[in-house]
Amino acid sequence: MIAEEIERRIESGVYTPASGFPTQEKLCLEFSTSRSNIHKVLKRLEGKGLIIRRKGKRTQLKGDGVKTMLFLYFPSKDVPPNEVRRNIRLKGISGFTNYQNLPVPLLLYSGIRRYAADNKFHLLIKVGEAFRQNIESILPQIDGIILSGDNIEEFYQTQLRNSNIPVCVIGAHHLMETDLISADYYEGGSRAASTILDRGLTRPALLTLCHGEIFTSLRMIQYAFVSYAEQHQLETAFLHTLQFDDLKNEGASVQALKEKIRKYNPDSIVYCGAVSFPFIRKIPSVRILPSIVVDYFDVINPEWNTEIIGFDAKKIGFMAAARLAERLRKPEQEPVRMLIPCVINKQNGIKARNSKN
Amino acid sequence: MIAEEIERRIESGVYTPASGFPTQEKLCLEFSTSRSNIHKVLKRLEGKGLIIRRKGKRTQLKGDGVKTMLFLYFPSKDVPPNEVRRNIRLKGISGFTNYQNLPVPLLLYSGIRRYAADNKFHLLIKVGEAFRQNIESILPQIDGIILSGDNIEEFYQTQLRNSNIPVCVIGAHHLMETDLISADYYEGGSRAASTILDRGLTRPALLTLCHGEIFTSLRMIQYAFVSYAEQHQLETAFLHTLQFDDLKNEGASVQALKEKIRKYNPDSIVYCGAVSFPFIRKIPSVRILPSIVVDYFDVINPEWNTEIIGFDAKKIGFMAAARLAERLRKPEQEPVRMLIPCVINKQNGIKARNSKN
Repeated sequence: MIAEEIERRIESGVYTPASGFPTQEKLCLEFSTSRSNIHKVLKRLEGKGLIIRRKGKRTQLKGDGVKTMLFLYFPSKDVPPNEVRRNIRLKGISGFTNYQNLPVPLLLYSGIRRYAADNKFHLLIKVGEAFRQNIESILPQIDGIILSGDNIEEFYQTQLRNSNIPVCVIGAHHLMETDLISADYYEGGSRAASTILDRGLTRPALLTLCHGEIFTSLRMIQYAFVSYAEQHQLETAFLHTLQFDDLKNEGASVQALKEKIRKYNPDSIVYCGAVSFPFIRKIPSVRILPSIVVDYFDVINPEWNTEIIGFDAKKIGFMAAARLAERLRKPEQEPVRMLIPCVINKQNGIKARNSKN
Repeated sequence: MIAEEIERRIESGVYTPASGFPTQEKLCLEFSTSRSNIHKVLKRLEGKGLIIRRKGKRTQLKGDGVKTMLFLYFPSKDVPPNEVRRNIRLKGISGFTNYQNLPVPLLLYSGIRRYAADNKFHLLIKVGEAFRQNIESILPQIDGIILSGDNIEEFYQTQLRNSNIPVCVIGAHHLMETDLISADYYEGGSRAASTILDRGLTRPALLTLCHGEIFTSLRMIQYAFVSYAEQHQLETAFLHTLQFDDLKNEGASVQALKEKIRKYNPDSIVYCGAVSFPFIRKIPSVRILPSIVVDYFDVINPEWNTEIIGFDAKKIGFMAAARLAERLRKPEQEPVRMLIPCVINKQNGIKARNSKN
């Protein structure tokens, strides 16, 4: 009853975006009902896409023509929420409370938020399993989704595909019939090998850091690196996968690395998935080697003495939002896949280091 | 002298795009000079971008605001011009006289031509070494270049980079700082493996056909195929590279294929770079296996009883021209890389074949 009356008022213009929406207190008084009852009513109106509620802020009317984007991120099960400590924080993202130490999705979100603010989109963010539980109440409010994270393909096929909500995926390659925005990981790997050659080095080792399985993005870097090396007579000393959990206590994958360095004598190291550069550089036989890191440049400490081939996560987020907005304007367009070129940081070039020796 | 007089007339509006440009005969008469002399004059004016000459057509004034795109294609040295016979021809492309049997660049050109005609661009096409010899006279007429073919990276670095003419590359990944439009080869390989799984098959062999070296595009298909298989518990029976030259006389790479089929017993075959499907299907142990071809679908005979995962070369050409046009309008834009999704042909599905057995 109350919900219908409020809905009627919104539709007939009693409440407008300009006049604002009454506070919960006022609604309790007017309809002589409990706060929890008003709460249920507002939730129902939100589900219908009529109002926008955000924690700590006053409820707003959504208004005509304002579209809602959802950034939906599924963290990898391999990355424990609080293990990887970072200095990058974005305030006011309640969904990320348990995942605030994951820098890349936060940077993606930062780019998406910038686009949404500049172009007057309403933006929601949902993270992980919390979304799955509320999917039926959330989806009706959403005009388009930016989807990223782990195991999203299965989720798309079972939950999103039939909703007909436009989806733009941020990630490596996939088989969903949607838009895709990705860092150009292939370019990152090729560029690392070509940089090694440019610097007069000849026997790089490629180190991949991971938690458990190797992601597609890291596999593409490896593959591109090896392909480029093969085509350009660059001798790859060895490839090696380091398990993150082995770093502190010098576990099996660290021991194997030391052994390979002794045996194959590389003259340089390329890192990818290099979330723990400082840990690795404590290994003496690694520390002396010139290095290149292929990663999101926002998460690499500029003080590390290494050359950086970086991906720009904020830009990728921004481009994904821009693409989703275009799709909302022209729903009949075919899906596109865009790769964002990497950025070369030449400040801490390994050439300079090399010539000092 | 004559060139300067004609140039003055163009600039002062004596000749206009509407009135047309005088014939060579008229110019010979008016300036009392030889046809070969007028020819030289016209060549000079063409080099300055003032007129447009095409074989068998009347010389035109280029006119204000009409921009010229060049499609510049370098055929692979590995592909002899007249060896691979095809039924696909496009009339009136003089540059392709010696390469008229290469279907993909012709299809790319067809897409580019469509865009140029729809959007009133002047379009030139140059093929291979002929261009290198005339580069200095051709470049001044050109507003933007669509570049494709073999060894183009070196060519770009040495000849084009400093010209500041916008370039859009059609190809697999590269390290040039330009726009890139490519078929999504990675998707093609993943899609082939996922289709094998969907059809209830479990032990595919991946056959790659090539002339000499394996192109990056084919390597990406291979890599994606293997990655998908690994991640989804699909057992790959084997990978094999067939040399095109071995097909007719059953050379070493054909013999090795027969041996591998005996040894590893695949239940299906995925082809890529499959320019000679009929030849391969003459091998009895290959013929009985359900198959998928990953290739440009325009070059695959629809009568072949195989499932097709295809790339659309015409569309790729069209998209490249559209991107170049956008770059000409907004030269300050950063380069983009776009991958064009593959197209699944379900008409000759291998499932149907399988269920008949």
